[in-house]
Amino acid sequence: MAKLTGQQVATHNSKDSCWVIVHGKAYDVTDFLPEHPGGQKIILKYAGKDATEEFEPIHPPDTLDKYLDASKHLGAVDMATVEQDEKVKDPAEVEREERIKKMPPLAQCYNLLDFEAVARQVMKNTAWAYYSSGADDEITMRENHSAFHKIWFRPRILVDVETVDFTTTMLGTKTSIPFYITATALGKLGNPEGEVVLTRAARQHNVVQMIPTLASCSFDEIVDAREGDQVQWLQLYVNKDRAITKRIIEHAEKRGCKALFITVDAPQLGRREKDMRVKFSDEGSNVQSKGGDSVDRSQGAARAISSFIDPSLSWKDIPWFLSVTKMPIILKGVQCVEDVLRAVEAGVQGVVLSNHGGRQLDFARSGIEVLAEVMPVLRERGWEKKIEIFVDGGVRRATDIIKALCLGATGVGIGRPFLYAMSAYGQQGVERAMQLLKEEMEMNMRLIGAAKIEDLNPSLLDVRGLQGGHHAAVPSDTLGLNVYDPLLSPRFAEKAKL
Amino acid sequence: MAKLTGQQVATHNSKDSCWVIVHGKAYDVTDFLPEHPGGQKIILKYAGKDATEEFEPIHPPDTLDKYLDASKHLGAVDMATVEQDEKVKDPAEVEREERIKKMPPLAQCYNLLDFEAVARQVMKNTAWAYYSSGADDEITMRENHSAFHKIWFRPRILVDVETVDFTTTMLGTKTSIPFYITATALGKLGNPEGEVVLTRAARQHNVVQMIPTLASCSFDEIVDAREGDQVQWLQLYVNKDRAITKRIIEHAEKRGCKALFITVDAPQLGRREKDMRVKFSDEGSNVQSKGGDSVDRSQGAARAISSFIDPSLSWKDIPWFLSVTKMPIILKGVQCVEDVLRAVEAGVQGVVLSNHGGRQLDFARSGIEVLAEVMPVLRERGWEKKIEIFVDGGVRRATDIIKALCLGATGVGIGRPFLYAMSAYGQQGVERAMQLLKEEMEMNMRLIGAAKIEDLNPSLLDVRGLQGGHHAAVPSDTLGLNVYDPLLSPRFAEKAKL
Amino acid sequence: MAKLTGQQVATHNSKDSCWVIVHGKAYDVTDFLPEHPGGQKIILKYAGKDATEEFEPIHPPDTLDKYLDASKHLGAVDMATVEQDEKVKDPAEVEREERIKKMPPLAQCYNLLDFEAVARQVMKNTAWAYYSSGADDEITMRENHSAFHKIWFRPRILVDVETVDFTTTMLGTKTSIPFYITATALGKLGNPEGEVVLTRAARQHNVVQMIPTLASCSFDEIVDAREGDQVQWLQLYVNKDRAITKRIIEHAEKRGCKALFITVDAPQLGRREKDMRVKFSDEGSNVQSKGGDSVDRSQGAARAISSFIDPSLSWKDIPWFLSVTKMPIILKGVQCVEDVLRAVEAGVQGVVLSNHGGRQLDFARSGIEVLAEVMPVLRERGWEKKIEIFVDGGVRRATDIIKALCLGATGVGIGRPFLYAMSAYGQQGVERAMQLLKEEMEMNMRLIGAAKIEDLNPSLLDVRGLQGGHHAAVPSDTLGLNVYDPLLSPRFAEKAKL
Amino acid sequence: MAKLTGQQVATHNSKDSCWVIVHGKAYDVTDFLPEHPGGQKIILKYAGKDATEEFEPIHPPDTLDKYLDASKHLGAVDMATVEQDEKVKDPAEVEREERIKKMPPLAQCYNLLDFEAVARQVMKNTAWAYYSSGADDEITMRENHSAFHKIWFRPRILVDVETVDFTTTMLGTKTSIPFYITATALGKLGNPEGEVVLTRAARQHNVVQMIPTLASCSFDEIVDAREGDQVQWLQLYVNKDRAITKRIIEHAEKRGCKALFITVDAPQLGRREKDMRVKFSDEGSNVQSKGGDSVDRSQGAARAISSFIDPSLSWKDIPWFLSVTKMPIILKGVQCVEDVLRAVEAGVQGVVLSNHGGRQLDFARSGIEVLAEVMPVLRERGWEKKIEIFVDGGVRRATDIIKALCLGATGVGIGRPFLYAMSAYGQQGVERAMQLLKEEMEMNMRLIGAAKIEDLNPSLLDVRGLQGGHHAAVPSDTLGLNVYDPLLSPRFAEKAKL
Repeated sequence: MAKLTGQQVATHNSKDSCWVIVHGKAYDVTDFLPEHPGGQKIILKYAGKDATEEFEPIHPPDTLDKYLDASKHLGAVDMATVEQDEKVKDPAEVEREERIKKMPPLAQCYNLLDFEAVARQVMKNTAWAYYSSGADDEITMRENHSAFHKIWFRPRILVDVETVDFTTTMLGTKTSIPFYITATALGKLGNPEGEVVLTRAARQHNVVQMIPTLASCSFDEIVDAREGDQVQWLQLYVNKDRAITKRIIEHAEKRGCKALFITVDAPQLGRREKDMRVKFSDEGSNVQSKGGDSVDRSQGAARAISSFIDPSLSWKDIPWFLSVTKMPIILKGVQCVEDVLRAVEAGVQGVVLSNHGGRQLDFARSGIEVLAEVMPVLRERGWEKKIEIFVDGGVRRATDIIKALCLGATGVGIGRPFLYAMSAYGQQGVERAMQLLKEEMEMNMRLIGAAKIEDLNPSLLDVRGLQGGHHAAVPSDTLGLNVYDPLLSPRFAEKAKL
Repeated sequence: MAKLTGQQVATHNSKDSCWVIVHGKAYDVTDFLPEHPGGQKIILKYAGKDATEEFEPIHPPDTLDKYLDASKHLGAVDMATVEQDEKVKDPAEVEREERIKKMPPLAQCYNLLDFEAVARQVMKNTAWAYYSSGADDEITMRENHSAFHKIWFRPRILVDVETVDFTTTMLGTKTSIPFYITATALGKLGNPEGEVVLTRAARQHNVVQMIPTLASCSFDEIVDAREGDQVQWLQLYVNKDRAITKRIIEHAEKRGCKALFITVDAPQLGRREKDMRVKFSDEGSNVQSKGGDSVDRSQGAARAISSFIDPSLSWKDIPWFLSVTKMPIILKGVQCVEDVLRAVEAGVQGVVLSNHGGRQLDFARSGIEVLAEVMPVLRERGWEKKIEIFVDGGVRRATDIIKALCLGATGVGIGRPFLYAMSAYGQQGVERAMQLLKEEMEMNMRLIGAAKIEDLNPSLLDVRGLQGGHHAAVPSDTLGLNVYDPLLSPRFAEKAKL
Repeated sequence: MAKLTGQQVATHNSKDSCWVIVHGKAYDVTDFLPEHPGGQKIILKYAGKDATEEFEPIHPPDTLDKYLDASKHLGAVDMATVEQDEKVKDPAEVEREERIKKMPPLAQCYNLLDFEAVARQVMKNTAWAYYSSGADDEITMRENHSAFHKIWFRPRILVDVETVDFTTTMLGTKTSIPFYITATALGKLGNPEGEVVLTRAARQHNVVQMIPTLASCSFDEIVDAREGDQVQWLQLYVNKDRAITKRIIEHAEKRGCKALFITVDAPQLGRREKDMRVKFSDEGSNVQSKGGDSVDRSQGAARAISSFIDPSLSWKDIPWFLSVTKMPIILKGVQCVEDVLRAVEAGVQGVVLSNHGGRQLDFARSGIEVLAEVMPVLRERGWEKKIEIFVDGGVRRATDIIKALCLGATGVGIGRPFLYAMSAYGQQGVERAMQLLKEEMEMNMRLIGAAKIEDLNPSLLDVRGLQGGHHAAVPSDTLGLNVYDPLLSPRFAEKAKL
Repeated sequence: MAKLTGQQVATHNSKDSCWVIVHGKAYDVTDFLPEHPGGQKIILKYAGKDATEEFEPIHPPDTLDKYLDASKHLGAVDMATVEQDEKVKDPAEVEREERIKKMPPLAQCYNLLDFEAVARQVMKNTAWAYYSSGADDEITMRENHSAFHKIWFRPRILVDVETVDFTTTMLGTKTSIPFYITATALGKLGNPEGEVVLTRAARQHNVVQMIPTLASCSFDEIVDAREGDQVQWLQLYVNKDRAITKRIIEHAEKRGCKALFITVDAPQLGRREKDMRVKFSDEGSNVQSKGGDSVDRSQGAARAISSFIDPSLSWKDIPWFLSVTKMPIILKGVQCVEDVLRAVEAGVQGVVLSNHGGRQLDFARSGIEVLAEVMPVLRERGWEKKIEIFVDGGVRRATDIIKALCLGATGVGIGRPFLYAMSAYGQQGVERAMQLLKEEMEMNMRLIGAAKIEDLNPSLLDVRGLQGGHHAAVPSDTLGLNVYDPLLSPRFAEKAKL
């Protein structure tokens, strides 16, 4: 069959007939336009053109096969005949490329926040905005890490810590350190290879990876990247069509996933204004009208990928999940003690105390704070062994991990930091991030006086800072601060003494 | 009758004989000068001249008819003969007009604070200062929003939230969402059409509007702008002359107002220094003397419009109000539980827990904090159904609305945000603001696990942050902070690597 | 007797023979050098020269008569023969004079902090440093005002506040408003006329003035400035020589002082580093040696004037004070409830809860906080009428005064704000400051729902913010804040749209 | 024996044969490379060259004799034949030398923080980073001083404080003031003479010095610098080889040390990222590869000196220590009340509540906070006399010392401030720092109403601020703060009035 020419495709450049090219093949998406979760606008921008670059990071490779009828697959295009857009380079993009050339060597990253600092400078704006944004005012997103700062240590001295062993077991899997890579969407925004980079790094460090429903790589690609007895878990957004959901679960179990994490904090995916604002700017050039348009032209990457999620999912569905898989089931996104108790009663094997990285409901409490609420109640009932409790959100230091474990968590999930490490430095970056956590872990276990995971317990913590709730100071005394003449340090002379 | 000439009017340019032109007609205000609530100075600035531009936003169109004896209405002026002031354009005003040309498109406003950010740049200084100012150090004004940040969510998961319904009933009126447009003065400062813009937007969104006593439009203009079964309430400053008050109430009831909100937190209108300072600058050019003048030359817009308010209004007056109208009566500005109990005993139908947007008494507590004090006491007495409780002040997000409703409020009032939206983008702006609140509301109801208003209850909140009172940190350790050498992120090279 | 010539004086320019000119007369201070409380260095700077300008603000006019033997008074100098120092004008001083020419008109000062803002710009460095400095890190000094921000109002509505009366009685004296001018030293640093300016302003506003021991004017000058039934109190530093103290008390009583405030928080006058640093710079030009000098070359104005104060003053001395005067005795500087109880038992008429404006012990609590500790204990014992409690420190707003009175104070002292008003605008400034407080007082009494002083009571306050002690937040998360990408408001276009 | 030539040494410039010159003598360190605690990289940088400058501050002079077999001592080098590195001066170093010329005179340092401010400007980067750095995010390091700000005074008035005596006895030694110089490593980084400078200053002020294991001077040099009845204590890192430890203890006792402080908070020396980052930059020029290197190239000075420390040290070892010395034994680095009780039971004479200056475990609580936890428990058991409690960390003011003593400490240790004083101003600096503390001490004892150490007790403090744990405020309301238009002070005119 003769290839299509660029000119042929280019004529189908409107709502009435809209073709796009992806990876050298043309597709007729005219009928699909109204159904596109990300809105038709973004497709129309590429009507009659090559959309590969935009399409790639947001859609797993099997997307077109899955969602577009075969009749709309128009076949190969002779790419030599496709006119290239004369791209005027965005000055911000030019600056970014300059910064990439000046990147600090990986060895200068001494902690997880260092990767974020580098990533912020070297990532594409849109990718950075998608990864780094949170709900509304991003209060919860920031509180997640800040909450750890309210918990302090009560270390024990003169404990033999010559050998420190922080291996542990999570959901039956022995791991080298009590954290796992939690599920995060759209890995190709940060690295052209996507989530498999994390798979490879996880293998190096004997760490569990949770595979996201909304990965840029396909599920099978991520599983295929696994080696040896490496363990993966599946994160699941429950589809309105339970048949699809069932198919996904069964496939995952067959492919060897060892646990099923059902996301329960996202009946609707959050509005992230930072993401929306960047997306808008990106499209802004062809926007003419001011006002008058009560529909958001852009919803950011988040809304574009979530329309299938079932907002009617409820406790009534849990028995069905328990019936369709032998994998342990963990509810991801539990946010108060009442629901943890209910989870125990529902018979699931675990919960993740999580607010979705602060990306969903602003003013949701941090997982670590909820943990401090949950554990005393579980212990009072003698239920603390009936369920494994995980926590995610804001973990950046081994001290954060230790705090969670002292309170009673089995392990913690870490998401964004590995995305940033991957975006800035690829697999080596992720590995170094994990290595740094291990070094911190060894040091801090020693310093707190704990030789093994079982030694971690609540008496090693001072958690009074969590008990008073959430403080905001009295608004600042503007005029008073303005008139205050601050004390100065000794003044150096203006000219050198002779 | 022959028109007056500009020259004729211009000769009456002093305290002894002071004529001014408004909307093409001349008025003799000589005798009125000492009575002008805004002070005579501001009138004398326009003695013998056209005062329309200054007069317009501060006075409803029926003002001159109502307050100036017909004998002082001198008739039409031939405006062609009126000399125009050679206005040297204020450089700040030139810059403002430049900014207006660069205004962000409305679609870039993603939340209520975004309208405020734009309004601050595009509004006239004096208008901005009047809207945005608060009492004394503006501590209470800022606390109003900040207080919401002390309240966090305890969301429930696995609730069926496929359909979310946040319609509700306030004072017998079914509305689309539990907020109303609260009364704010001088709408024409922000938009030449004034409060009717809000009326029209309210209709689009099925939202109740409260009509302010101190509107720039006349009461009847605002009522005339109503359509269909749209509902309006009346906000009332009680006049020293109760006959006037009675007339206003009866007229409002006849014109279809559905509730009477009596303002009880403003026996005297507040001093707002930001407003005073801007007003002063505005008049500053002809100010010569330094010091020696112990009388404020300017009191800002606030003081100019309030001298009629009765500071002797007391609980003894309530029965009279109940006797003169069938409209439900709501006390607006209640600030402690004792007065809520007294309001119940006095037989009114509702209270608004409010501190007048932080414009009256500084260090008055936020409405939301008072609500947290009030509801447990009401519930203890079984009185929580005896009265409807509203809250205003600082509401900017749907999460704020949800917090108020979880605590027990029937609805919340929103004022300034709609003024800012109207000032920046007109009716479209107000509509988008309302639309954004609805989108946030739907999302956040889902995320908190509430499918309808009745599902909102105190167990969904963590309010410990309100219980410790108002904190101010120890004054900063100036020298210590000065010598601390902060940690740095990895450093990018100065020159690109080859 | 022939006048001395400048040349004659100029030869006595060393430690061995040191003459100085003050107000046109020469004095031999050779023998006095070692005794000078401010150190000999500062005198030697003027050896053989005219020292009037430096001498004036720090010493009352009768100082030389009192402390230098008549034999050392050398008589008049022919000032025409005194060589004037070629003063190279300090560039900072030139800038200051420029600022004075641009001073805001008095009418632009809308609150007490505004005077401080102006004074900071127009006062001499050394004067500003003396007035504005506090002990050590100036934590207590700033806490004094900040503590008021922890106290919030619970206003009552629907109270008849048509007439508001805030006159009150303090120590038997009827005053127009419950504050007094508290004692502050060295008034001539801010105004060439010194403390009599305050006397005159106090008379205009029917406010009590407390006369400081360390005034720049002599005691009699200040008393002489009094008019009619104006009331003055005396502040007393107790001299090591009780005969001197007795003479001062008896003289004050004879001259009509109505109360005796004994300072008890200053057995040694504080080190104020801001003051010391400025003084050092002032003298710095002739400092050569680096290091090696373990004696402070300068102690600032504070240390220079206090060597006579008796650090052995104790409770045992109180009966003696009660025996030597009929004036009511008030202990100024009490700082905990135990000492208030002891003061009642000792039979004094009042206490001032004060930390000396934050100028003595850093981390001393604010007077208002101590008041909240004291009153419940007094009430429990039924002692609240046995003693009058005053508070000073940090009072800047009428709301501050109202808070103190609600808690149980009889009145409050205000010091620095009047110094700043006087330094910037003279008597008119002080009067306006008082007028502003009265306007705020009237407004805020109305808004809190209190028609008279007796209506003020603890139920109008929310003092929970004082009960948790003094908070300092966890040190900032430097790296975390550094990587956080803050949300932005909508962006204005770079170029105007056409 | 003929001297070696520079050329001869220069040929041994690799891993295979590595010679270095120190103080004019050559050493063959080839075999030692893998054992070097600081890593071989740093030695290889000087292979075949003169390493004296780098070697000097980090190694006591007896290091080579102690740790390098005599056969590797190659003898003297003719230094005239050693090629000098053409050092291109680091521009930062040039700027630093400029600043040294402009240093403020010592007399301008009015408090301990002033020395730090100067030292930060005049010390070498690497030295500053080593002294000033702390663990992880340096939260604990800063909390150490900040914690004192949560403790306020309740001073007593009318106490006879004519004579104030703050001499005291610590571990049987009478000292002039209740602080001692605590052990800090590597004194020669700040001053070429190292720790003996502190010895001499301590003698001048009759203050005890604690000798650090990791001093730059040898132990004997520091003891030799002692004079008269001056008292020194020994700080001990316990070696894996107890024979070495025993030798050190016995030697110290023989040389007259009066107490043995065993460090128990450092089973592994901390990671200090500030130190690592500076070290990296220092070495950075010859770093080529980006990423790929999972081993830290540099660990900063801290890790370089600690590999001998025994992480298996435990309570079981205490009886042995008690058996090998008659010196009182104090555990340095205790961090919770449980371990203090255990220390009493173990029979040691004292504990230092310390977190190692914030250099080990981040989020360890401050010593002063632990003290407030410990003392009530000890008093309840009547054990408060059984053990002497010391505190270190964050002491900068005499008020800090007084707070510790009021709570129940015997004395406090001060470390970094004396290092900074020494680094900036040498012995004179240290002496002035001590003198300033004495002046503050006298003043503040007076102002709190305490004439002697025994008068200090808990009723003089308000410690409520410590009881609520560690607070972090709600993350900032970015958009809200962004739109708030802050109040302004009166505006000065742009041009002077005529």
